[in-house]
Amino acid sequence: MINGEKSFDRPLRWGMVGGGRTGQVGYKHRTGALRDGNYRLVAGAFDLDAKRGRDFGIRLGVDADRCYATYQEMIAGERDRDDGLEAVSVATPNFTHYEITKALLEAGIHVICEKPLFFTVEECDEIARLADEKGLIVGVTYGYTGHPLVYQMAAMVAKGMLGEIRIVDLEYTHGFNAGDDTDASEAQKWRTDPSKSGSTFVLGDIGTHLHYLSEIVLPHLKIEKLLCDRKAFIPSREPLEDHATVLMHYDNGARGRLWVSSVDAGNMGSQRYRFVGSKASVSWSDSRPNELIYEIQGEPAQVLHHGMPYLEDESLAVDRMGALHTEGLGDSWANIYLWIAEAIDAKKRGDEAFLGTHHYPGIKAGTEGVRWLQNCVRSAESGSAWIDYR
Amino acid sequence: MINGEKSFDRPLRWGMVGGGRTGQVGYKHRTGALRDGNYRLVAGAFDLDAKRGRDFGIRLGVDADRCYATYQEMIAGERDRDDGLEAVSVATPNFTHYEITKALLEAGIHVICEKPLFFTVEECDEIARLADEKGLIVGVTYGYTGHPLVYQMAAMVAKGMLGEIRIVDLEYTHGFNAGDDTDASEAQKWRTDPSKSGSTFVLGDIGTHLHYLSEIVLPHLKIEKLLCDRKAFIPSREPLEDHATVLMHYDNGARGRLWVSSVDAGNMGSQRYRFVGSKASVSWSDSRPNELIYEIQGEPAQVLHHGMPYLEDESLAVDRMGALHTEGLGDSWANIYLWIAEAIDAKKRGDEAFLGTHHYPGIKAGTEGVRWLQNCVRSAESGSAWIDYR
Amino acid sequence: MINGEKSFDRPLRWGMVGGGRTGQVGYKHRTGALRDGNYRLVAGAFDLDAKRGRDFGIRLGVDADRCYATYQEMIAGERDRDDGLEAVSVATPNFTHYEITKALLEAGIHVICEKPLFFTVEECDEIARLADEKGLIVGVTYGYTGHPLVYQMAAMVAKGMLGEIRIVDLEYTHGFNAGDDTDASEAQKWRTDPSKSGSTFVLGDIGTHLHYLSEIVLPHLKIEKLLCDRKAFIPSREPLEDHATVLMHYDNGARGRLWVSSVDAGNMGSQRYRFVGSKASVSWSDSRPNELIYEIQGEPAQVLHHGMPYLEDESLAVDRMGALHTEGLGDSWANIYLWIAEAIDAKKRGDEAFLGTHHYPGIKAGTEGVRWLQNCVRSAESGSAWIDYR
Amino acid sequence: MINGEKSFDRPLRWGMVGGGRTGQVGYKHRTGALRDGNYRLVAGAFDLDAKRGRDFGIRLGVDADRCYATYQEMIAGERDRDDGLEAVSVATPNFTHYEITKALLEAGIHVICEKPLFFTVEECDEIARLADEKGLIVGVTYGYTGHPLVYQMAAMVAKGMLGEIRIVDLEYTHGFNAGDDTDASEAQKWRTDPSKSGSTFVLGDIGTHLHYLSEIVLPHLKIEKLLCDRKAFIPSREPLEDHATVLMHYDNGARGRLWVSSVDAGNMGSQRYRFVGSKASVSWSDSRPNELIYEIQGEPAQVLHHGMPYLEDESLAVDRMGALHTEGLGDSWANIYLWIAEAIDAKKRGDEAFLGTHHYPGIKAGTEGVRWLQNCVRSAESGSAWIDYR
Repeated sequence: MINGEKSFDRPLRWGMVGGGRTGQVGYKHRTGALRDGNYRLVAGAFDLDAKRGRDFGIRLGVDADRCYATYQEMIAGERDRDDGLEAVSVATPNFTHYEITKALLEAGIHVICEKPLFFTVEECDEIARLADEKGLIVGVTYGYTGHPLVYQMAAMVAKGMLGEIRIVDLEYTHGFNAGDDTDASEAQKWRTDPSKSGSTFVLGDIGTHLHYLSEIVLPHLKIEKLLCDRKAFIPSREPLEDHATVLMHYDNGARGRLWVSSVDAGNMGSQRYRFVGSKASVSWSDSRPNELIYEIQGEPAQVLHHGMPYLEDESLAVDRMGALHTEGLGDSWANIYLWIAEAIDAKKRGDEAFLGTHHYPGIKAGTEGVRWLQNCVRSAESGSAWIDYR
Repeated sequence: MINGEKSFDRPLRWGMVGGGRTGQVGYKHRTGALRDGNYRLVAGAFDLDAKRGRDFGIRLGVDADRCYATYQEMIAGERDRDDGLEAVSVATPNFTHYEITKALLEAGIHVICEKPLFFTVEECDEIARLADEKGLIVGVTYGYTGHPLVYQMAAMVAKGMLGEIRIVDLEYTHGFNAGDDTDASEAQKWRTDPSKSGSTFVLGDIGTHLHYLSEIVLPHLKIEKLLCDRKAFIPSREPLEDHATVLMHYDNGARGRLWVSSVDAGNMGSQRYRFVGSKASVSWSDSRPNELIYEIQGEPAQVLHHGMPYLEDESLAVDRMGALHTEGLGDSWANIYLWIAEAIDAKKRGDEAFLGTHHYPGIKAGTEGVRWLQNCVRSAESGSAWIDYR
Repeated sequence: MINGEKSFDRPLRWGMVGGGRTGQVGYKHRTGALRDGNYRLVAGAFDLDAKRGRDFGIRLGVDADRCYATYQEMIAGERDRDDGLEAVSVATPNFTHYEITKALLEAGIHVICEKPLFFTVEECDEIARLADEKGLIVGVTYGYTGHPLVYQMAAMVAKGMLGEIRIVDLEYTHGFNAGDDTDASEAQKWRTDPSKSGSTFVLGDIGTHLHYLSEIVLPHLKIEKLLCDRKAFIPSREPLEDHATVLMHYDNGARGRLWVSSVDAGNMGSQRYRFVGSKASVSWSDSRPNELIYEIQGEPAQVLHHGMPYLEDESLAVDRMGALHTEGLGDSWANIYLWIAEAIDAKKRGDEAFLGTHHYPGIKAGTEGVRWLQNCVRSAESGSAWIDYR
Repeated sequence: MINGEKSFDRPLRWGMVGGGRTGQVGYKHRTGALRDGNYRLVAGAFDLDAKRGRDFGIRLGVDADRCYATYQEMIAGERDRDDGLEAVSVATPNFTHYEITKALLEAGIHVICEKPLFFTVEECDEIARLADEKGLIVGVTYGYTGHPLVYQMAAMVAKGMLGEIRIVDLEYTHGFNAGDDTDASEAQKWRTDPSKSGSTFVLGDIGTHLHYLSEIVLPHLKIEKLLCDRKAFIPSREPLEDHATVLMHYDNGARGRLWVSSVDAGNMGSQRYRFVGSKASVSWSDSRPNELIYEIQGEPAQVLHHGMPYLEDESLAVDRMGALHTEGLGDSWANIYLWIAEAIDAKKRGDEAFLGTHHYPGIKAGTEGVRWLQNCVRSAESGSAWIDYR
């Protein structure tokens, strides 16, 4: 159980690019990073509007002279300080991830970046090489995957409690884009502009969460074939999609299906995961993150509750509130940030043994997300045909 | 509201082929048919084991001399009676539906047949012509579609309360065949034998329910393209499937996805339907048939309860128990049988005007189910490729 | 599993008093009685409006000359027929139960009566003596207690799976009387008239269901002390109540609490039962009658599904639809009527051994319901004070 | 919406008494206090085991010389520092609350104390006078009442959306003490020792949460009469209780019932609130804190989702994560701590106008909780009789 004790001697000097007052995601980064005293917010380029960003940073407790207008100025301004930035989170539109991450790494700063990480696997590979050369960590904020019951599912699969995996059913749908984009906010507009969002809208925006969580639960399954059928119900979003179905054949013979949509009018259930094996199934939703349904064929269904002693150690280890007390998305983000901090600390100490077994969403997870998106797009552009995954 | 008043002057003289003591489906037919006094069970060929069938029939109140060993003997024995059979239900394995239905129609008897109706559309068309010539009705027991809230969904779609339909999400999965068939009952064994089950297992056994219900709710949508990916996780079931995913493109641009499986270990939720429009969605499950979720984007989700005055007339008209009082599958079957009785009565009276607007699962519904199965198989056998629906 | 086979050689000749077209409860009686071929509806005095009752009876298939204007005429008319009535259901306002039941018994007819049975325990005892003298059965339609999972709970308690019982939590609330009675139907009006309803409204109307079901599950627990706090939120209903809380101390030290209300605005969940023991708890609601929650302290909660082989024999024996297939209130009523028919048959055969162990809602259950109501009223009228149960 | 911007210029210098490594509640205080940058943890007397407490404090980032062995040493050590403590949270067993709070106030330090606040109303009143004299705030950590949908309920009641309040139904039960206390932890043992826990166990431990939340939603309702029936199912806990039922009559005629238990085997649902008015009801549970059921009699039930624009401003103002993104108990504690910080800041600034309307759980809320407990005990000790509330 996590209780706020710091993992190492002093907090990382941490900053942000983006995540300003008008966006929704910045608070998630901060509430995650600042929870356990492992990060201290010391600088930032929070907003395209420099004045607003500076004002906001001051309200967050950042010194005025470390509230920068741009990430370039931030890198320059922090370079020569003894107490300069050690780690920076990137919470900006997709098309800027690559250039900002690259610049930060080149300045010797660890990076924690929003998903989807970059536009292409090639960019991912290049950044991975750069980080490796520099001895730096790149974390990716798959923010839903810090929930303790995700690791319960993974542990149950690993122990064979489900038998051989047969069916993977993944859904993340909502209806916030059911209407057209006439009144869309700036934060929304870039998501349907291919030059800024990349080659996908909902597949990248929400589908990558499904894909990464399924990789945590099913680390040994590989996709062999994939089919993606996508559509923009609001035509102005073309060539990007507001709805997609993806079918997957895994190397063990399992079958997967995935649904992402932002036009699923009225659905507030967010994500639903179901993993079916030859003996039993598990189901979980981020909208009720504290319970897990475990169904053994021919027996009563079981509802597992977070924080209870009957859970696997992997799940209990990352619980914060304890049974009866609800955990939310903020707790999940706090775990993600903790694990990335542990990776950064190990990297600083040169502890590759730790890094070899340490679980956190890093450059590899980010790369696999981009690879999956590229395969989806390749299928969709081939007439929604089956393709070999590569 | 239905309260058991008879629809016409005297009950139909009714019999059964199959539906004996050891099967599960016979009781559903009887509890449906006998509910409203519109059918009276007077004869039957209930069982392949003639003695057991005769004993069973007697326990159901049938005269011993009208408990027949075979359907052929039943037809022969009833032919010359003044009080001979008028309608017969066929609750036998799939491969016998066609020959039994044909023989009954030729003997001048209305038929109520299990789904999937026959093996091919050609057989369906032939039987439709025969029934038409003979002035007889063929009903199909899509037993789940008698629930009042199914008609609530249909009425809401018809009134435009959902806006333009965009997404159709259909699931019927369970795990009763998660294990292999070593200890399978006879009732189960024929289902995975292509010579007896036809060209599908779960697609025909449970998928046709999904397809027919979606046709009730969305009568104006037509499938243009379809893709079916199926698999037998238990190899001995090949070439039939115990799991399938079907993708559909409708003529209005809507996208459909459908999942059927009998290896979904532990799932007792049975069927789940979700219809998403540009304004709102409705969701319903036969496992909680008395409530309907109605979600208008941007408003609180609504839970509609059967039998309440705020429902549409189409739904209230077929309610039996009234609000607060649960209806179950037996009530749904009772409605199906009532509607078929009304069709038979109209046919007897020559009331084609009534038949022109009367809703019941008849030969057309059965034919469309078989057509859909044929398209699924054609896609599956083409490498799970997209095909034009025909 | 019940599959519609008749329990004995020919159906009982059965009639109804009340239960006409405009009421809601008549259909429940008929769908229950007629399900298994153990009753045949041959006569009735269905309605205070004789013409409407006669027309209705005919539509139910009753011969016109056996559709009577009053129950007195019915008794007189049936007396001398060889095929006269053997059993009659009484579905009339409370204040008529006693006189009608008495007249029927004196005419040698078995009675199936609505709850609350009579106004006083003295009346119950008198009727019990009369029935005994005449060799007749009095059944009481506690219609919710035919659900299979009720007997699962009883069997689990009996086997000690819950440990020693500590807490009994009973609720039956709805909001259909949240408004005043300005527009109340006739069927509603008598319920708040003490001369017709007796000394209670909701306690008798819905509370007796809670009490009887709890007696099935906990047959060995006796109430020692009771406190009833009741209120009419709509003053015109005084001195009767539209809301009441009852606290109970049982002889083993267990504590009970019970809530009934018809002003619980918007609540469609109907009844909720929770039985807590030293080791585990069970929870069940008639609004989701096909699932049972079983919670062992320190283990995952279990959801039991009706009709599954892991259930106790007592539950499986009374299942009708089988797992995956929903049962509703009609199925529950069918079981009640079946068990009463079995009691009547045994009485006719003089099989007291069978009657000694046969479970059905009879005169004893009805009497205990009235006793409980009298204790509730006595407490309420003593300033909602604790009283010794007697 | 709260996004982590600080409410005032610099964080309060904050410390803790109790809340050490082995307890469960300390992390809730810290995750609440540290979320928004309004508190900085600078000192503490975390543990009865001084060495363990010091080690723990260091791991929390506290300077070693400000990790004190006792609260007395802490007060002494901080007294003369320029950067001494401004506010301290008390997370110790009940019997120490009064003396620690008094000592802190006398030292000029704001206090944030666990519930139940003290043993008697007299103590509460004395502390209130002391705080007033010193110009200091006493906050009480009713940690569940920071959830946004609590304020949605309050706003809906205030706007009359429920009509006149009729029924208040409050439950907080779990089963963690279903077994005896043989293996109880130290943290558990003091709770059933009257000299340390006070005159109640579960009433004070969990019942006060129910009472305070109901006061937020129904500020204008006053209890007139109360009855408390309590029991220890584990006899060694006597004279304290592990189960209690409380009935309440409010001054507007409403009826309340409340259930607390720690022997409700297997129940993980924690708290359930239902407020019923003449027109509609609302239901909420802390176990699913992000949804609220709103039921208008005669209309479909509505499920409200946190963070959605259709909610009242009072609820949206205190949302942190936004719709679709779950909030948990930590977010609720963060709000409580934020509101207390705002009160402390206003007190420092002498802004009594702000304090006059500012909502936070303060000495008054704590006092009312103790008053309610005293009434419960007085009734229980009078034979569970009705008493006038005073």
